[in-house]
Amino acid sequence: MTNSLLVVGSIAFDTLRTPFGEVADELGGSATYFSTAASFFAPVRLVGVVGDDFPPAFRQVLESRRIDTAGLQVVSGGKTFRWRGSYQGAMNEATTEEVQLNVFGDFRPTIPAAWRDSRLVFLANGSPVTQGSVLDQVARPDLVVADTMNLWIETQRDALLALLARVDGLVLNDGEARMLADEVNLILAARRILEWGPKFVVIKKGEHGALLVARRDAAGDAPAGSIAPLPAYPTTAARDPTGAGDSFAGGMMGYLARQGEYDFPHLVRAMAYGTVLASFAIEDFGLRRVGALAIDEIEHRLFAYHDMLAF
Amino acid sequence: MTNSLLVVGSIAFDTLRTPFGEVADELGGSATYFSTAASFFAPVRLVGVVGDDFPPAFRQVLESRRIDTAGLQVVSGGKTFRWRGSYQGAMNEATTEEVQLNVFGDFRPTIPAAWRDSRLVFLANGSPVTQGSVLDQVARPDLVVADTMNLWIETQRDALLALLARVDGLVLNDGEARMLADEVNLILAARRILEWGPKFVVIKKGEHGALLVARRDAAGDAPAGSIAPLPAYPTTAARDPTGAGDSFAGGMMGYLARQGEYDFPHLVRAMAYGTVLASFAIEDFGLRRVGALAIDEIEHRLFAYHDMLAF
Repeated sequence: MTNSLLVVGSIAFDTLRTPFGEVADELGGSATYFSTAASFFAPVRLVGVVGDDFPPAFRQVLESRRIDTAGLQVVSGGKTFRWRGSYQGAMNEATTEEVQLNVFGDFRPTIPAAWRDSRLVFLANGSPVTQGSVLDQVARPDLVVADTMNLWIETQRDALLALLARVDGLVLNDGEARMLADEVNLILAARRILEWGPKFVVIKKGEHGALLVARRDAAGDAPAGSIAPLPAYPTTAARDPTGAGDSFAGGMMGYLARQGEYDFPHLVRAMAYGTVLASFAIEDFGLRRVGALAIDEIEHRLFAYHDMLAF
Repeated sequence: MTNSLLVVGSIAFDTLRTPFGEVADELGGSATYFSTAASFFAPVRLVGVVGDDFPPAFRQVLESRRIDTAGLQVVSGGKTFRWRGSYQGAMNEATTEEVQLNVFGDFRPTIPAAWRDSRLVFLANGSPVTQGSVLDQVARPDLVVADTMNLWIETQRDALLALLARVDGLVLNDGEARMLADEVNLILAARRILEWGPKFVVIKKGEHGALLVARRDAAGDAPAGSIAPLPAYPTTAARDPTGAGDSFAGGMMGYLARQGEYDFPHLVRAMAYGTVLASFAIEDFGLRRVGALAIDEIEHRLFAYHDMLAF
């Protein structure tokens, strides 16, 4: 049985340049990438905001998948969030050249009444106050996972800590984990974060993969069962890393929604699916690669990835 | 049946500081770390050079293991190689503060006549001309693997390319692979290096693990069977990264010597053993952790590592 999956996050127009090309006004944003990746596994309930400059064709891109856009607010006279940036060299980091928050700056998510029973909730990167307001509007989900970023760690640390007490999982990148926990070792950093509430932390390391650290069970310090380091799927075809992290989270949460089990082995397998979705996401600009995927390609790559790690 | 394993490399006195402490005149050097790690799996034939300041106690450390020091040259009136350095923060990179090459600067390896039949040869980091002179002195080994570094890529590129035509495998770190191949993508960089001779390349990524890229078989572009990305074993106990790369290579080559098989699946498993040995090496200064290991601890960690990657 598939469980209902709600995501709240940004929807954007991205204009960007990498060593492999450039695009302008591409459909992007965290909720967009997340939903597209997750939709292979489960229907997605999308809550976000756009301006009335958001073209019907873009809404159609979302609705052509199993993405319900009933939670998409359209601000009349407003403009959609815009991001402009670029990547150099190994493309490990984006250089942001311009941000126009526009309607996303005043985003007050409203969860449609019919969605308050959502079983899984993903709070894409956003202010922890806004993320918390989403949790105020849903009733007892089975699994709540949040993303965050350095901006909130620096400027809204208390609100972020309050949010952490209300989530099951946190997803963030390695530099952010070190900053939040004030600890260099990533496992120790994750364990400090676990003390603040979550049951697990997923640390994203870009081209180096991801690290899952969960609360230790009765087995004590045994790393197996509480720690899983997964490398990125090796690809020679990386062209645009935008959306990789949200595609990872989408693959992970989509798989968990489909399975309805959230123990450690399921989390590891969910991360493997996330890794595969992220590897596809970066192979072309925007949603082009993931949006055109067949589920068979995902399964095929998952098996290849599995075989690479078998020894 | 265990196959004979020859290593040629440096033996040094290391003086170093990390956020977790400092040591002076510690026994170190590439051949020392390599031999110690490899000796759990196979007897090691060590060729290196020291001065007459090299204490009998250090020689005893080596000989107390399955490390044959018959190839250890002692230069009368000479001084042993000395390195002084430090690590900050996440300890991803050493800051070299002083190098005294001493007798290692004029090292002309002489392979004892009885060792010319060695089945496996590891050429630890050194000038490619010197590494090549070792190959001139051995007869048809089954497996030759070399390490290298940025210094040789920059200053002796032609000699390095000539050496590559004579080895089966090359081990180097990610920055060096990118420099040698003039290619940012690590898989493409490795494949360019493969065109110069080796059958496989192992790219070490420090705390991010290692990547094996081998010549593709008839299956063509299928990544499984020619690419294996292995994460580092996650540890909270990192204290001193010195020797991690050579311990990795030692675990890898030692396992291959014990098994006597060098196909892709064996290479991947050998890397897993190398990963485990490297994870122990960094848990204490110098040889302290690996030198005191029991084989049971290695096997136990290998199983834990295996389980972490199973999904």
